[in-house]
Amino acid sequence: MKSISLILLGCGGVGRQLIHNIISCRPLHAKQGVRLRVVGVADSESLLVSSDVLTMEFDDHLLSEICRIKLNGSSLPTLATSGSCQVFSSSESTKKIVDIAGHLVRSTGLAVLDCSASSDTIERPLTSSMEDYDKLVSHPRRLRHESTVGAGLPVIVSINRLLSSGDSICLIVGSLSGTLGYVMSEVEDGKPFSQVVKTAKILGYTEPDPRDDLGGMDVARKALILARLLGHRINLESIKVESLYPKEMGPKAMSVEEFLANGLSLLDDNIEQRVRKAASNGNVLRYVCVIEGSRCEVGIQELPKNSPLGRLSGSDNVLEIYSRCYKEQPLVIQGAGAGNDTTAAGVLADVLDIQDLFSS
Amino acid sequence: MKSISLILLGCGGVGRQLIHNIISCRPLHAKQGVRLRVVGVADSESLLVSSDVLTMEFDDHLLSEICRIKLNGSSLPTLATSGSCQVFSSSESTKKIVDIAGHLVRSTGLAVLDCSASSDTIERPLTSSMEDYDKLVSHPRRLRHESTVGAGLPVIVSINRLLSSGDSICLIVGSLSGTLGYVMSEVEDGKPFSQVVKTAKILGYTEPDPRDDLGGMDVARKALILARLLGHRINLESIKVESLYPKEMGPKAMSVEEFLANGLSLLDDNIEQRVRKAASNGNVLRYVCVIEGSRCEVGIQELPKNSPLGRLSGSDNVLEIYSRCYKEQPLVIQGAGAGNDTTAAGVLADVLDIQDLFSS
Repeated sequence: MKSISLILLGCGGVGRQLIHNIISCRPLHAKQGVRLRVVGVADSESLLVSSDVLTMEFDDHLLSEICRIKLNGSSLPTLATSGSCQVFSSSESTKKIVDIAGHLVRSTGLAVLDCSASSDTIERPLTSSMEDYDKLVSHPRRLRHESTVGAGLPVIVSINRLLSSGDSICLIVGSLSGTLGYVMSEVEDGKPFSQVVKTAKILGYTEPDPRDDLGGMDVARKALILARLLGHRINLESIKVESLYPKEMGPKAMSVEEFLANGLSLLDDNIEQRVRKAASNGNVLRYVCVIEGSRCEVGIQELPKNSPLGRLSGSDNVLEIYSRCYKEQPLVIQGAGAGNDTTAAGVLADVLDIQDLFSS
Repeated sequence: MKSISLILLGCGGVGRQLIHNIISCRPLHAKQGVRLRVVGVADSESLLVSSDVLTMEFDDHLLSEICRIKLNGSSLPTLATSGSCQVFSSSESTKKIVDIAGHLVRSTGLAVLDCSASSDTIERPLTSSMEDYDKLVSHPRRLRHESTVGAGLPVIVSINRLLSSGDSICLIVGSLSGTLGYVMSEVEDGKPFSQVVKTAKILGYTEPDPRDDLGGMDVARKALILARLLGHRINLESIKVESLYPKEMGPKAMSVEEFLANGLSLLDDNIEQRVRKAASNGNVLRYVCVIEGSRCEVGIQELPKNSPLGRLSGSDNVLEIYSRCYKEQPLVIQGAGAGNDTTAAGVLADVLDIQDLFSS
């Protein structure tokens, strides 16, 4: 039986789902000859680790307790009373994790799973400076990050397979925001933009402040991850991002309530005109990322109604990849691109996928 | 630099494309720290191997020569004049390959790439008896076979990722024959079945005898591979296969020419009626595999026009996967599912994907 030691960063929805999946997959993974042993869990404030990472792992009872107390809003240190765990503050945690990796390097190795939702727990090196990115990818086989684009959809693995087979990717067009996918397909039917955004907020499709979605930065970060995967040495600032609201309606200028009550509806006319103009060309509008040559853009594009992206409705993500092998018709990957369940599944699949790096 | 030794079985279109790709990818793979060293190549008659697999690999000139002479219809032994290669007959080749694997096990390991188009070179253990299959998958990490379903499309890798993350797949529906995909989308527009099949033959979409496609066994073999991946312990005989021609028009009853001239057009009426009936329900006909619970079927199904499968046109493959994570809307993978280029790319991606199994 091969053991892989894990430290989980982040106990939000994805982190807790991942813990549930690790527990429920134990019989399945045992059949595959793999045992996942969790030796540490961190939230934004503290890191809980096994007192002896070599011999003691978190048992399933403790893991369930972690999920329970985090869901109730308690903090991790409340669980460190038994002596089987130690607690470290977030400022000490990086050093501690490096120590643990050193201890485990000759036995089970250590995989660190970052499921944190904010940059408080750990910085976002995939989308920060090229210097950080280069460090991360200096051992490309040891880094997996499927769930950073399209949640569990097999996006990164598919692109990596094309690249390693020598196929040259010439164009990627993707709808990578379920929220904006929903909004753009709804306005197509003539519904006012403001009404669609409000409905999306009620349905829980948007962030608490919908401008976090409408600004396009979430899509831009995903586009950056894909562009860097293709070898583009660019930063977030190099990406042309179209925001669906003007600066004058930004968070510094007005509150969420003001934006929803007074700002949003002022945007209806412009979107309606653009939708009509596209329709007169037989096209529809989609909020997409486009990566082509050195160009990397994020914003509204007119696309043929009769294309995978044009046919998209609901909150699915779609990625079209054009390459030497997929020249006339693209390789298309489509499906739910958000949700704790599929995001956690993507992380767990990555862990199983790196098992050959671990010797024991 | 990590070296992976390879033996290629099959020098047809896919095998030659693979050799081309290995050569052209050398700089790319070097950047990834991997060196692919070909130490043997086989066709259906003989196996050509390096005289000393530990120290000598086939150089790029010899690899190009292999492609050139095989394209010209010559046999491999004509290249074994220099003393750097040895030739073995096909009956000796299995034993020799096992020997080589033994020699290389402590240095570069050995990957055997089966690109043969016929079962003359090697049997098809993925679709033969469960006994053979069980042997093959007894070391699941050492077996990759992406290109056996949908050519280079990321089908197997995506299903394996879902499975290893504990997602439960409840339904797979796929159009896995570019030929039958083309035929079914063309008859939808009212063209006679016989005319569409003849056009497909002229376009080179069908096998020399179109009944090899119309019989559905190619799709059934792919369905079997997917069903076994999901854990179904079934054989090819257990799959319900709908043939698009009756036994009375089979290869034993009439020649290809007779079938095309006299048989085929007798099938037009039936197909036309079924197309019309489907259309009256707002549906279209697709030749698909359906794997659901213990059911595994291959044949014509009525499907909603407004689904990824229903919208399919041309010769693309499409796979819809429904699971716990992809419940309402399926995970969809679509693109060219045939062709030497994409098939060879899938094989090469598999080789790079197993690199962590090799130590040196």
